Amino acid sequence: MSPLQLRIIGTIRTPYTSLDDTPVQAGLNPDGEGSIEFEPPYAEGLDGLEEFTHAWLLTWLAPLDADRPEPGLRQVPFLLRSKPRQFGIFAMRGPRRPNPIGLSLVRLLGVDGATVRFAGVDMVDGTSLLDLKPYAEQLDSPKGEVRSGWFDGVTFGDAITPSQLARRPPDII
Amino acid sequence: MSPLQLRIIGTIRTPYTSLDDTPVQAGLNPDGEGSIEFEPPYAEGLDGLEEFTHAWLLTWLAPLDADRPEPGLRQVPFLLRSKPRQFGIFAMRGPRRPNPIGLSLVRLLGVDGATVRFAGVDMVDGTSLLDLKPYAEQLDSPKGEVRSGWFDGVTFGDAITPSQLARRPPDII
Repeated sequence: MSPLQLRIIGTIRTPYTSLDDTPVQAGLNPDGEGSIEFEPPYAEGLDGLEEFTHAWLLTWLAPLDADRPEPGLRQVPFLLRSKPRQFGIFAMRGPRRPNPIGLSLVRLLGVDGATVRFAGVDMVDGTSLLDLKPYAEQLDSPKGEVRSGWFDGVTFGDAITPSQLARRPPDII
Repeated sequence: MSPLQLRIIGTIRTPYTSLDDTPVQAGLNPDGEGSIEFEPPYAEGLDGLEEFTHAWLLTWLAPLDADRPEPGLRQVPFLLRSKPRQFGIFAMRGPRRPNPIGLSLVRLLGVDGATVRFAGVDMVDGTSLLDLKPYAEQLDSPKGEVRSGWFDGVTFGDAITPSQLARRPPDII
């Protein structure tokens, strides 16, 4: 295996088959449920996860069967589709990144053998899992003042999929 | 570029040259400062990042010049070195993972061209950067009760590097 090549360690199962109808962020769809089917050899690595309430899923956000072009470095975030404004890709969370790795905070519902059930779905069905890391409050909550850039100006409503966001009039996100 | 191959988009500069003397988690070394030198073509992607106080760094935790073996799926976390107990790799944050991708929450100090300065260092000097994502409170803070497994039983003291943790007597972490 060449040095910077990744392994697929599992597959995520969700109710969403089209990217345009998949919620854009796990935190905006907290009650949507999904599951991860780990490749059987990796099930042993789940020992102890049941003591955590939340976890990070690192996912692969690009097709597996094609080379990928360099994405544009300035893009319009999905959440700003109704009033387009471009930001640098490192100031947003969109999927078309130099390395298309997704980061989703999910709530754990149960571990059963090689299957992990969770709530908080922003992945299309069949998404490949690269890593799962336990959420540790001691490491993952910021200290001091927190400002979240353009996110702080977004009113999060029921429109949480790319196609819903595109249909919204410009003054309602 | 083959589908699951990663690009190195920048290099992290820190005061730490040996992994054994590098703090084990960014959140445990909140005042240590480092910087990221982005590859020049990617500097454009930083537009808007200055409006965020915190960011996630996704890093490559393995050597770049060698194939890597499959890591053990049960390991002893660095933080438990003084009273060894094994956990599954997906219930801990250690670097020897099926996909050796690190996730560090850092506090942003400034963006200047292709350089990003930050506080909260848990990387050895020269670590390769795979992605930088802005921290968005709306997406990255868990809802409901939070339990962080074995982390909740660790008293975080001044011993934050692997070599310090190895020297500690069994009853003090």
